[in-house]
Amino acid sequence: MKTISTTKSHGGIQGVYSHHSTACDCEMTFAVFVPPQATQGPCPVLWYLSGLTCTHANVMEKGEYRRMAAELGIVIVCPDTSPRGKAIPDEPDNWQFGKGAGFYLDATEEPFDKNYRMYSYIVDELPALIAQNFPADMERQGIFGHSMGGHGALTIALRNPQRFASCSAFAPIVQPSTADWSVPAYERYLGEDRDSWRPYDACALVEDGARFSGFLIDQGKSDPFLDNGLRPWLFEEICRKTGVPLSLNMHEGYDHSYFFISSFMEVHLNWHAERMMAKQ
Amino acid sequence: MKTISTTKSHGGIQGVYSHHSTACDCEMTFAVFVPPQATQGPCPVLWYLSGLTCTHANVMEKGEYRRMAAELGIVIVCPDTSPRGKAIPDEPDNWQFGKGAGFYLDATEEPFDKNYRMYSYIVDELPALIAQNFPADMERQGIFGHSMGGHGALTIALRNPQRFASCSAFAPIVQPSTADWSVPAYERYLGEDRDSWRPYDACALVEDGARFSGFLIDQGKSDPFLDNGLRPWLFEEICRKTGVPLSLNMHEGYDHSYFFISSFMEVHLNWHAERMMAKQ
Repeated sequence: MKTISTTKSHGGIQGVYSHHSTACDCEMTFAVFVPPQATQGPCPVLWYLSGLTCTHANVMEKGEYRRMAAELGIVIVCPDTSPRGKAIPDEPDNWQFGKGAGFYLDATEEPFDKNYRMYSYIVDELPALIAQNFPADMERQGIFGHSMGGHGALTIALRNPQRFASCSAFAPIVQPSTADWSVPAYERYLGEDRDSWRPYDACALVEDGARFSGFLIDQGKSDPFLDNGLRPWLFEEICRKTGVPLSLNMHEGYDHSYFFISSFMEVHLNWHAERMMAKQ
Repeated sequence: MKTISTTKSHGGIQGVYSHHSTACDCEMTFAVFVPPQATQGPCPVLWYLSGLTCTHANVMEKGEYRRMAAELGIVIVCPDTSPRGKAIPDEPDNWQFGKGAGFYLDATEEPFDKNYRMYSYIVDELPALIAQNFPADMERQGIFGHSMGGHGALTIALRNPQRFASCSAFAPIVQPSTADWSVPAYERYLGEDRDSWRPYDACALVEDGARFSGFLIDQGKSDPFLDNGLRPWLFEEICRKTGVPLSLNMHEGYDHSYFFISSFMEVHLNWHAERMMAKQ
């Protein structure tokens, strides 16, 4: 692991690091905020998964998470959204596919199956690196994210309910198998057999029996992607039918940007802190 | 005035606007945050002046001011740092001069005297536009800034003490007349006669008799520009000698970045709110 930068902020340290990822077969960059409480011992770990076109840097710069993370004593890990580098298959003109659009899945189709393995990267490889190199209490983890990263958070929590004490999302893609902007990507990453898509679709996972202790979702009503890409009511309906606890809050006037995310960051960090701290 | 964007955030509206500036003879862009309290009536106005290389956008994205501005009910105005456009004289390879480096002065030397008139722009032209177009209580104004913008805030407050109820700065250039990175710029904007530099130098202004009700300065001890560019102890010494109230706080481990600024944004907004609200 290489340290790219460490900067003091809100009493803690905001770092940026890189390492060679085995899962993605390339150099990957990620950000970690370590709160001041870490000098006293390991702190709970909250994973933030970013949306389409983003890297680790967007939420680090615009997410406004450090003040509350420093107050609550939470390590925040912000991974990249896809493999990176010149050798990685990509479509530079397509922001919904390739670099910046890994969809937190393990691709099975050539030529993407070699590098586009973000599920394994986030679930297996990066946690091991974090556990080894940071003052992280891996028994107390939470996960959240935005848009494509909200999809990542919901699906990874549903598939690993014992690991995560908490899960939340800002404007998540809840049913990527049917959303305009993700269907073409899923076809090329996972192939035509739509059954293979279901482990990477929050609605399908709940339909297929996956359960989680409860979700928090915040969504802006003026989000331009609401009707075609996000559609949180689909997840709400399935959660209601199956008894999965969901707190869905629709907000008048808010859009899809970090101006929206940062407005509700404090609410989400409190949601996670309460559940991570309560875990035995 | 053109509206470039308006986005809901923290219950208020973060807007970006542009207009033709007479002072700078070019199109200028600026950001304004209007807090939710503005629906009830005009709110105090706090000016944030940015540092070298910045536009209106840096603090808008990374400054983390909206949460507290929305809580306290303060309009935040974030101007650009220099004239802009293809026709503006510039040195693209020099980040300490030309575009992004207006130093909040009115240049007197050709060819810069036509556009580099940021003092007049910030003190006269933009306030008139703000008063006309936003729910701004112009009887309650404060001013702050970072680095070159800290210099701008200190000098503009010292020259207009009746207008501003409050002034503060993050890592300001307190004596640009003698700082490594500003002397070459002052020579070219203002000419060789160093007496003409004194109205644009906080230390010289206090020496020459300018006074203000009190300043707050926060400064990181790990700031790489501390010894050659910033040197807050020069201002501290002059304030001590002349009885100008100054609260200078040196912070272990903090650098010159927005990771530092955002860490102390809440302290500064409270400083301004207390003084702006108390103004009769």
